[in-house]
Amino acid sequence: MSDRTTGGRHAAAPDVAVPLGAHHDGSALYVPPGTPALGDIVPVRLRVPSDGPAPDVWLRVVEDGEPRVYPARADGGDEHERWYTADVPVTNPVTSYRFLLAGEGQPGGQAWLNGEGTIARDVPDASDFRLSTTPPGPDWARDAVVYQVFPDRFARSSGRHDGPPAGELPDWALPAAWDEEPIGGGPGTGTQLYGGDLGGIEHRLDHLQRLGVDTLYLTPVFPGRSNHRYDARTFDHVDPVLGGDEAFASLSRALHGRGMRLVGDLTTNHTGDAHDWFRRAVEDPSAEERSFYYWQDAAPGYVGWLGHASLPKLDHHAPALASRMFDGPSSVVGRYLAEPFAMDGWRVDVANMTGRQGADDMTHEVAERMRAAMAAINPDAALIAEHFHDAGADLRAAGGWHGTMNYSAFTRPVWTWLADPAAALRYVELPVGIPRRPGPAAVAAMREFGAAVPWSVTTHQWNLLGSHDTARFRTIVGSRDLVEVGVGLLMTYPGTPVLFAGDEGGLTGRNGENSRVPMPWAQIDAGGGPAWDAGLFATYRSLIALRRSSRALREGGLRWALVRDDAIAYLRETAGERVLVLASRAPWRGALLPGHLLAAGEQPENLYGGAALAVEPGGLRLPGDGPGVQVWRLA
Amino acid sequence: MSDRTTGGRHAAAPDVAVPLGAHHDGSALYVPPGTPALGDIVPVRLRVPSDGPAPDVWLRVVEDGEPRVYPARADGGDEHERWYTADVPVTNPVTSYRFLLAGEGQPGGQAWLNGEGTIARDVPDASDFRLSTTPPGPDWARDAVVYQVFPDRFARSSGRHDGPPAGELPDWALPAAWDEEPIGGGPGTGTQLYGGDLGGIEHRLDHLQRLGVDTLYLTPVFPGRSNHRYDARTFDHVDPVLGGDEAFASLSRALHGRGMRLVGDLTTNHTGDAHDWFRRAVEDPSAEERSFYYWQDAAPGYVGWLGHASLPKLDHHAPALASRMFDGPSSVVGRYLAEPFAMDGWRVDVANMTGRQGADDMTHEVAERMRAAMAAINPDAALIAEHFHDAGADLRAAGGWHGTMNYSAFTRPVWTWLADPAAALRYVELPVGIPRRPGPAAVAAMREFGAAVPWSVTTHQWNLLGSHDTARFRTIVGSRDLVEVGVGLLMTYPGTPVLFAGDEGGLTGRNGENSRVPMPWAQIDAGGGPAWDAGLFATYRSLIALRRSSRALREGGLRWALVRDDAIAYLRETAGERVLVLASRAPWRGALLPGHLLAAGEQPENLYGGAALAVEPGGLRLPGDGPGVQVWRLA
Repeated sequence: MSDRTTGGRHAAAPDVAVPLGAHHDGSALYVPPGTPALGDIVPVRLRVPSDGPAPDVWLRVVEDGEPRVYPARADGGDEHERWYTADVPVTNPVTSYRFLLAGEGQPGGQAWLNGEGTIARDVPDASDFRLSTTPPGPDWARDAVVYQVFPDRFARSSGRHDGPPAGELPDWALPAAWDEEPIGGGPGTGTQLYGGDLGGIEHRLDHLQRLGVDTLYLTPVFPGRSNHRYDARTFDHVDPVLGGDEAFASLSRALHGRGMRLVGDLTTNHTGDAHDWFRRAVEDPSAEERSFYYWQDAAPGYVGWLGHASLPKLDHHAPALASRMFDGPSSVVGRYLAEPFAMDGWRVDVANMTGRQGADDMTHEVAERMRAAMAAINPDAALIAEHFHDAGADLRAAGGWHGTMNYSAFTRPVWTWLADPAAALRYVELPVGIPRRPGPAAVAAMREFGAAVPWSVTTHQWNLLGSHDTARFRTIVGSRDLVEVGVGLLMTYPGTPVLFAGDEGGLTGRNGENSRVPMPWAQIDAGGGPAWDAGLFATYRSLIALRRSSRALREGGLRWALVRDDAIAYLRETAGERVLVLASRAPWRGALLPGHLLAAGEQPENLYGGAALAVEPGGLRLPGDGPGVQVWRLA
Repeated sequence: MSDRTTGGRHAAAPDVAVPLGAHHDGSALYVPPGTPALGDIVPVRLRVPSDGPAPDVWLRVVEDGEPRVYPARADGGDEHERWYTADVPVTNPVTSYRFLLAGEGQPGGQAWLNGEGTIARDVPDASDFRLSTTPPGPDWARDAVVYQVFPDRFARSSGRHDGPPAGELPDWALPAAWDEEPIGGGPGTGTQLYGGDLGGIEHRLDHLQRLGVDTLYLTPVFPGRSNHRYDARTFDHVDPVLGGDEAFASLSRALHGRGMRLVGDLTTNHTGDAHDWFRRAVEDPSAEERSFYYWQDAAPGYVGWLGHASLPKLDHHAPALASRMFDGPSSVVGRYLAEPFAMDGWRVDVANMTGRQGADDMTHEVAERMRAAMAAINPDAALIAEHFHDAGADLRAAGGWHGTMNYSAFTRPVWTWLADPAAALRYVELPVGIPRRPGPAAVAAMREFGAAVPWSVTTHQWNLLGSHDTARFRTIVGSRDLVEVGVGLLMTYPGTPVLFAGDEGGLTGRNGENSRVPMPWAQIDAGGGPAWDAGLFATYRSLIALRRSSRALREGGLRWALVRDDAIAYLRETAGERVLVLASRAPWRGALLPGHLLAAGEQPENLYGGAALAVEPGGLRLPGDGPGVQVWRLA
């Protein structure tokens, strides 16, 4: 904390505790664990502070399109909070519900409680809570910490991390020296080849384990005509440039031998124009593969993804495409889940556009089909969709993706709270810099996008601070302290944390392409250097360890305790554990939280950050330091 | 205005005009009229006040699931406002878009503009603007003023409006004297028969024309075993108790002869248990009609609507049901659109549940099928769905209902702004009284629910202050002045105004059943009486005439100008006309609006309410009187 400005110039917080509102979420404190079936009755619970008259509480459930309202029953509590229980009839594959609280002391005399909080006006159903009859993703995926690697930029199996890659290179490749800065746009961006490979990753698994991650997510390993390989030439084998099928199988064995997992990356939206299927489709109009693509009169004669002729778009109406891509053990999806590759899941590229083209919308059908095919081969496999925007509708539908890359409900709100506006970096498609917004704006976005999905999806969302498609988080926030705040949120928020390799050492980059920086192994091995912040690595390691040590951080409910411009605090709770997280982006006034949040007879245990949570007569005093992140166990 | 408290006890409004925000909606000022086709490029316009630096303006369009951002171009304006144009590629059947405004003077440095307004944080796509390739409902329906009649309670063809009905009555009927108060619940509610009939309505069409309405919507006319007839025994003929097919054809001819229209009411969700189809299904398990219903082991052996055994639920999987109900000229839907009945549209009962049952969701398929079948027989027929709640998802889908009964975006927000909380009346399923909420809460609900649908639907929504399913508006608000405020909103808001017969004379009723009050013809004919407020009738007539006289009120855009706890004001605008509506529920401070809203060289013309809009150096002064409604033409 020595390098931080303390809150001395701010007036002290008042001595009245910030009240907590009524709360419900889908975690086990409120909803019995397990996946309900149609016809089940699920008792759900609500907690309401006792600092006012007891409200009348009802449950509103949408059944077959019609809201019904049932009384909730009082179900225990104490002088600090009252609990209520109500029965949700599981009427539809996804059953949506919310609460109605009425009486003196309720905002406006009566208010709805949905996933956005307590709202004293009528609201659409979008932010209702939801029970889904679709099983969630596997438990391991919820509990994982994922490490994303862009294979060309991680490590060479030769161990020689200097100069250009050795050996024969593909005809399209522009050899790059390992310490060369990746081109951020224009010629060479997609063809610079640094020569990282699968063997290189396998050699460096100790690094992952030192860090504490347990799942490796690899961007595509199929041969393409670019360094990113999202333009697959074939799905039949792993790129020989990366070491081929054998290196991939070996990496998988090595990971599993260490108790780790492996997730691959599949383009379901398009292939490369050099793909076997597309070549046959072009060369022979009677070929079966002709039906796999969208053809048009206008040049180049087919639909390319976002207009790129190199990326012909797949037409998922073709039954033969489904059988080649999804169905059965010999499909692309199936083959890599089976031995010897034995992958533990797929991340789906451009999932938000897959199956969508003009009047066609087969996205959900593709998701359902892929999930079912995967479950038949490996019931424990995870299925995560890329989606930069509003994925609510796709994730609310029953039977689709287990989760998405959670840019909208996590990444982007965190960026907008912590961004350095002077950096003027951009979010994917947006033409303006990432703004710096106050806490209430960021949290409102987290809550609204977060409320759009069932809790069973929430805990399987891939939260991230950046990826191979974005600027580096270190560059976005402009300071190491704010990186720590972001990582603190990442490791304590509901959903699976995902790191982009190198973030843990403070690598920088101004956009997705420029961020695909090779790992500076010489500096890493030397314990640090100008491009490698070993202290930050220790921060990541501590916060990852913290998450792994706390069930509440992985599975617990999320209760917002405080939202100020410069500080936010939330509780993560299971029946046996209560963890308080405080993140601040700058010094602030501090505040008091209700004292009863601390279990009787206990003292707050600081789990991260080192600051005391003072127990005062008026409550628990949140310190006004900043920027920083503090985590305490209260029960 | 003599009986109103003026704003004397309130401080005068400050002399600074309330600024108007950036604005776009789907009306012709902003979007070229007509229905676009896939592949079209639609130039859409945005207006931004000039009272700050010019913003950078972009258009964000979701194309095949992916947001794209395009620059908008400056497109004229003056010292008061700047206009921008951007091109929307019509990529999908429903293409959603919004604007991004950035620069000094924008909230938070950059903000989204969607149907809810300007928002300085990221938001889901739900409130985006939308272009639909589905044609809207017919123009006549947009321009109509609809009068809802519950046939048993309007008028008897005998002309004798006293005592119980004459003649033979159905076995289930409980004869009621014309001036008896309808039972609000319990035994007799559904069986009290007053003996109103179709001939009675035909005799009284002068009343409708005096009032100024042009479309008659009749709740069901098929025989049932109740006074409401939502439990049809057959769809083959009109109830003889109402006069049968001949009386219905005669009423239709009479209406059309006066240039009026006729809309019927169909239960697509269920039939009565005495229905021909259901009887055959029960009596003969091999009958085709067996497939029309949902069967279950539990008593009564089939699924009843909301558990009512008297209302067996229809299963729309049955192809034979579709052909009997929807398809072709001999279907139920078709037959009554054709001569001699020649109905102009259908209102669909319980549309929100139709086709929804457990894992089945065929609602949109039914809507599409019904629309297509109707279009084949009468391309000018209207299709309106009953929906008390969040109809957004159903109305956003292409090719479904033309509109819904707009309870969520109009009725309920207006109620919550104007309700007398002491009345403790209830909204449909809710167990608590209608709250009285401040203007911002009511308007936020209007905007959020309203933003959920394309503008082409907005103008075809059936706005209403009450129906045969609700308490009477007069009883909800508790004062005649507040009724006038509500009617003022109804007649000046985008969407088709719908009146429940008798509201125009101030009939009262505490719930849907109790509100089905027979028309007090003796008092009406006498020019008023204790149950008939002839002054209120004049108010309705004036406001209906106002709507009919102003194209802006029927088709114009909707720009919010002021939202205060006790007063709201909005502009309705076409290229040639600007109308300002001010509604207040109580005396308030008054306010100034920007003077440039008044066309150069003109004076505000009061179209309703009688108050002056003073033109002052600082702007246009909204008077602080209340309650009341004022309408001025500004251009």
